[in-house]
Amino acid sequence: MVAETIFVGTEILLGNIVNSNAAYLGNRLAALGINSYYQTVVGDNRERMEHVIRTALSRADIVILSGGLGPTQDDLTKEVAADIWNRKLYLHEESLNRIKAYFEKRNRVMSENNKKQAMIPEGANVLVNHNGTAPGILMEEAGKTVILLPGPPLELEMMFEESVVPYLQQFSDSVIASVTVKVCGRSESEIAQILSDLIERDKKENKEGVSDSGDNDKSGEEENRVTVAPYAKSGEVHLRVTASAKTEDAAKRITEPVVKEIKSRLGDSVYSDEEQETLEDVLVKLLKKNGLMITTAESCTGGLVGARLVNVAGASDVLGAAFITYSNEAKGKQLGVRKETLQRYGAVSEETVREMALGAARSSGAKVAIATSGIAGPGGGTEEKPVGLVYIACAVYDEVKVLRCQFCGNRQKVRESAVTEALVLTRDCILKYEKGKK
Amino acid sequence: MVAETIFVGTEILLGNIVNSNAAYLGNRLAALGINSYYQTVVGDNRERMEHVIRTALSRADIVILSGGLGPTQDDLTKEVAADIWNRKLYLHEESLNRIKAYFEKRNRVMSENNKKQAMIPEGANVLVNHNGTAPGILMEEAGKTVILLPGPPLELEMMFEESVVPYLQQFSDSVIASVTVKVCGRSESEIAQILSDLIERDKKENKEGVSDSGDNDKSGEEENRVTVAPYAKSGEVHLRVTASAKTEDAAKRITEPVVKEIKSRLGDSVYSDEEQETLEDVLVKLLKKNGLMITTAESCTGGLVGARLVNVAGASDVLGAAFITYSNEAKGKQLGVRKETLQRYGAVSEETVREMALGAARSSGAKVAIATSGIAGPGGGTEEKPVGLVYIACAVYDEVKVLRCQFCGNRQKVRESAVTEALVLTRDCILKYEKGKK
Repeated sequence: MVAETIFVGTEILLGNIVNSNAAYLGNRLAALGINSYYQTVVGDNRERMEHVIRTALSRADIVILSGGLGPTQDDLTKEVAADIWNRKLYLHEESLNRIKAYFEKRNRVMSENNKKQAMIPEGANVLVNHNGTAPGILMEEAGKTVILLPGPPLELEMMFEESVVPYLQQFSDSVIASVTVKVCGRSESEIAQILSDLIERDKKENKEGVSDSGDNDKSGEEENRVTVAPYAKSGEVHLRVTASAKTEDAAKRITEPVVKEIKSRLGDSVYSDEEQETLEDVLVKLLKKNGLMITTAESCTGGLVGARLVNVAGASDVLGAAFITYSNEAKGKQLGVRKETLQRYGAVSEETVREMALGAARSSGAKVAIATSGIAGPGGGTEEKPVGLVYIACAVYDEVKVLRCQFCGNRQKVRESAVTEALVLTRDCILKYEKGKK
Repeated sequence: MVAETIFVGTEILLGNIVNSNAAYLGNRLAALGINSYYQTVVGDNRERMEHVIRTALSRADIVILSGGLGPTQDDLTKEVAADIWNRKLYLHEESLNRIKAYFEKRNRVMSENNKKQAMIPEGANVLVNHNGTAPGILMEEAGKTVILLPGPPLELEMMFEESVVPYLQQFSDSVIASVTVKVCGRSESEIAQILSDLIERDKKENKEGVSDSGDNDKSGEEENRVTVAPYAKSGEVHLRVTASAKTEDAAKRITEPVVKEIKSRLGDSVYSDEEQETLEDVLVKLLKKNGLMITTAESCTGGLVGARLVNVAGASDVLGAAFITYSNEAKGKQLGVRKETLQRYGAVSEETVREMALGAARSSGAKVAIATSGIAGPGGGTEEKPVGLVYIACAVYDEVKVLRCQFCGNRQKVRESAVTEALVLTRDCILKYEKGKK
């Protein structure tokens, strides 16, 4: 069973909005074990839309479109899709009533042009929209299916889950299970080399060098196929281990030994294999486990490290107070960094960042402290201390470790890299502390 | 001149990453006056990739691909594109040296598989990658052009600006000028109503109801077309005013009166019409202009307000010290919030957030202070104080204004909304202060 997705909207072509619906549908189709080989974006243009729908119908069983169901003349998706199968549109009273009710509930009057949204192709199923005015459409003909969904993500997602998932499940004879092994503190190419045989295996078992989401429709010898794909993700590397099989349990049984092997080769660099778990989640958990409070003293990162920690629900168990000390004065006053240190070594130095960390710990009473000081740019760099240079310190009790990092990219990138590196360093330090205790 | 973009990567098909490169390239091509009618995503699969490249070459003059230039066996884009035009790959010494230097600079050893990235199709131009290892490729044949760019956004964007823009400019016979009018503190539907005639005009002047990026190749009557499109953007609304004409000056002359009209209708809610200028840029500028220092006292936002301010290069002129006070103890110790206040009204209250702001100002010496305290969720809500409730205070000297906000969405969304609202409130307060001075 092959599905193909089409996204209608000149605003997507023009880059005015990012096509998050594509990621959503891609993700959901894969989870349902439905192959998907192409995604296409096309503008609000009759001819071109017709062309892409016909192309998709020629190579897929199910074509899912999103967007272009609005009330304006611009919105053509339903009209074009109905034309392709020679279906006339009629006024669907139930949908009209639902649209009217939608406006009434919001104390607004329905405009005349919203009537267009209640026009439905003959013989089509109507998919109820709980979050907006445009109903969805599902049409079948000669073994093919066309599904039209509204563009706004909130409307599309709820309609997809409620009406499309149950429809698609009947076609899915295999399930894809995937595990994401999350790695920090190592580069993608380093990991690719350590795991080269696992990444390669994918290719050998899959004769054509195909590693699409899709190829689970070839049964038999493909059943035991497992793929390992690395993705670099702002300072981390995620390894996606995917297998397809008849049942979810069977697919999981295939991924398990591979995940185990990856963990054993990469050791402590693997921080999680939970889909939803982030680096900061793991760090907060680790702090809790060891009964440690944490604080931060941030200069160039200006609160981003704290914000990452507070991302975690329940962060209050490990974080009470933290400091943004951007000026030298604040470093002195709030953290007790000595004037001589700042004068002799500068604010961006191993010595300063060390005193910042110890000062923040002292001032807050926390036993773990992260400190950052660097030159995020674009200005302020020198030959000796170029833009992108960031010192990061982590103190666990009296033990302080300092990293000198040279990051690339713009101000934003430098700061993001510094934040991730700071979290990685802190995790390392606490793991070391934990081992020392034993 | 028609360009088409193709995005290679199974991770995009599977929805593991959102295709932000599509938005970036779409935006840039439109700005260059180059039509673009389709965007296609395809997995790391030889046959299907070849199929989409051939399709794109059949309907566009320039085909731009991104992704699949990495060092692994998975990465096939260069190999497939070279095959289509029967070009052999050879080892490009200059690129190899650049990759080696890239690793040396980072004190790392180049892995053997990175050599693959220095393999270049015969007769192709090499586009230098300043932010990564994969060089870009530009090949011409029989009036068509194929351009290969790396997938990581930072690498793609810099390479596009440096090497691809100058190449594309020679083909562009019309130019699209667009101005983004940035509005804060008003909802999208409120703005749509105030500007309804301007937004509608777009539709009427454009006879076919087609509003593709593309239709600027019809000259003459299209020359004076101007469109106003609103986009909601995490607490702000951006109005994109676009016109196409033969020259940039002519296009600008068309947008100017429309921008002026929007500003006059929306007043102080318009905070900028500079493409690169953010709300925090404007706020930092406003603080500098009035000789004011700012500080923050953050509870639920945990450093995010500070981080937004430090986004701005030169933020050190207005921000010296700031406070993350997550626990009640820290609110008392660092900011002097009274125990009675916390006990009587709770941490999430008008009274507490008011004392936080005044305390942060006192402790740091800054004359402007932002404070936040709220329930970001998912836990911690009560009937009286539900999840999403955030109090935001802004103090300018002794004048404190407090907002009680009820935000929707998950923890992340609530905190982001609170941060934007805090910046908007602070801008309002300083504008009021500025008017009072006069």
